[in-house]
Amino acid sequence: MYDVLIIGLGCAGYTAAIYSARYKLSTFIVGMEEGGLGMTAAEVGNWPGTKEITGPDLMQSYKDHALSFENVTHKNARVTKIEKKDGVFAMHLDDGQIVEGKAVILAMGSKKRHLGVPGEEEFAGKGVTYCATCDAFFYRGKDVAVIGGGDSAVEGAAIAAQVARTVYLIHRRDSFRAEPYWIDEVKKRQNVVFVLERNVRQILGSERVTGVLLDQPFDGKDSLLVDGVFIEVGADPATELAQTIGCRVDAKGYLQVDAGMRTSVPGVFGAGDITNGSNYFAQFATAAGEGAVAANSVFGYLQGNGAGKGIAKAG
Amino acid sequence: MYDVLIIGLGCAGYTAAIYSARYKLSTFIVGMEEGGLGMTAAEVGNWPGTKEITGPDLMQSYKDHALSFENVTHKNARVTKIEKKDGVFAMHLDDGQIVEGKAVILAMGSKKRHLGVPGEEEFAGKGVTYCATCDAFFYRGKDVAVIGGGDSAVEGAAIAAQVARTVYLIHRRDSFRAEPYWIDEVKKRQNVVFVLERNVRQILGSERVTGVLLDQPFDGKDSLLVDGVFIEVGADPATELAQTIGCRVDAKGYLQVDAGMRTSVPGVFGAGDITNGSNYFAQFATAAGEGAVAANSVFGYLQGNGAGKGIAKAG
Repeated sequence: MYDVLIIGLGCAGYTAAIYSARYKLSTFIVGMEEGGLGMTAAEVGNWPGTKEITGPDLMQSYKDHALSFENVTHKNARVTKIEKKDGVFAMHLDDGQIVEGKAVILAMGSKKRHLGVPGEEEFAGKGVTYCATCDAFFYRGKDVAVIGGGDSAVEGAAIAAQVARTVYLIHRRDSFRAEPYWIDEVKKRQNVVFVLERNVRQILGSERVTGVLLDQPFDGKDSLLVDGVFIEVGADPATELAQTIGCRVDAKGYLQVDAGMRTSVPGVFGAGDITNGSNYFAQFATAAGEGAVAANSVFGYLQGNGAGKGIAKAG
Repeated sequence: MYDVLIIGLGCAGYTAAIYSARYKLSTFIVGMEEGGLGMTAAEVGNWPGTKEITGPDLMQSYKDHALSFENVTHKNARVTKIEKKDGVFAMHLDDGQIVEGKAVILAMGSKKRHLGVPGEEEFAGKGVTYCATCDAFFYRGKDVAVIGGGDSAVEGAAIAAQVARTVYLIHRRDSFRAEPYWIDEVKKRQNVVFVLERNVRQILGSERVTGVLLDQPFDGKDSLLVDGVFIEVGADPATELAQTIGCRVDAKGYLQVDAGMRTSVPGVFGAGDITNGSNYFAQFATAAGEGAVAANSVFGYLQGNGAGKGIAKAG
């Protein structure tokens, strides 16, 4: 029986593990993808105190820190089910293991959104991917399309432009909602073609991707010839498991948490991109803050003192 | 005229500056004490990704990061007044400079609480200080008292015990509310004497501190002979300036902010220990998260789009 089960191997999960370890709680942290979405950042410039680091290096530092505590157990597995019985949580893993804990922190982050157009499923892994910064390097000297207008899309296009011949940045609106830093960066790249106010209607190909079909002509043509398509149209919180144990989600689909990162189910807490915390601002810094608060609340919950409310800030 | 004025040179302020710089906002950051309360941590083990660092080194890394952006102006000064006129903020500094900005982030942290006993003011700087970890090293081979039961007191006693001969840890209750990590650490020190369920009634001395008078005898004596007294009984949010511009504080005295770190005054935001954010859990990680959210909200406020609400999390 562990004090706390943490699900998710991203910044929020690892920070929660660091804090719960320092609270001397026996901690089990599990997830499928080490580093989570943070692995997809080619260049991180906004982790406070670190001018520049790659996403994988930053995630490795969180993991190393969490695993430096002897009361933290780490496992790579998928959680298939959580049951609550008599105030104890039983977490079922896909290898058959069942792990019990007194409290749970849900930090599974979010899942990349799909476009839902013909050809997308057919060519998944055959030119269609959901992470421009991860996969751009396989397209050296080729032509690619990045679809989206947020941070991931605009950063992805800027990174892809360093290796690809031409990058079409296709966005349904006429302006981007990405961080201005990345908008500036992408505009500096000579080989990025902005395809604005256009939607992709179909992904074309035979064995692999050969192009995308637009809803309106661009530069006189209905389609663009590309070898790769990076779909970066956002992500949705991974709340399926949370909902099966009765945790409420908000109107936008995020795991509902209060200021102490408590969900609607006693003993279950949330942290990071999966939650509606930090004004929905999904960053390494906010995930870390939420992970710390969640662990503090678990500590309070296990002590039965109202989840540490209002104790800690006054030092 | 700057886009944003940030007051406070701690983790929250510097993180807000890093984010606003990346939003391409012209940023002016000012404060009296570089590094703020973070400077007082001898050993930081819970900044995610960094197993161990000193408070001053960590604070320096935040400052260096913030100042690496050319659109950040940094100044050491005290803010004496803020006025709002026609939607513009005029910030008065103690050297006479007046700096104008379109938005303000209040990140002044908190101020150390005093005991309010005879002798405290008289011997301030003559053996009485408010930071055990900062000043312990001046007491090599001497006897000192640390007063308090939270993180600062318990960490302070553990650190002081490395150099002092005897450390009396005086606490009014019979147990500590500090992080268990530090409670374990202090218990390992052979030269720490726990003086529990006792209050200090007076600080004794002539030219300098010579002892403390207790409200109940300890080990048969009414007073303890010490050369230094470190008062670590908590801190209060530094909200005076905030209140002069009409920002609401909550029942506990903290700057009231919403999920977007907006105060009750349009254009004024808060971050870090001064606020009621992050469930009052004052940590480097939560200050960083709040600083990021505050800058994101400033960006939204200046764009007139409802302070970025709900935009960023979906990527």
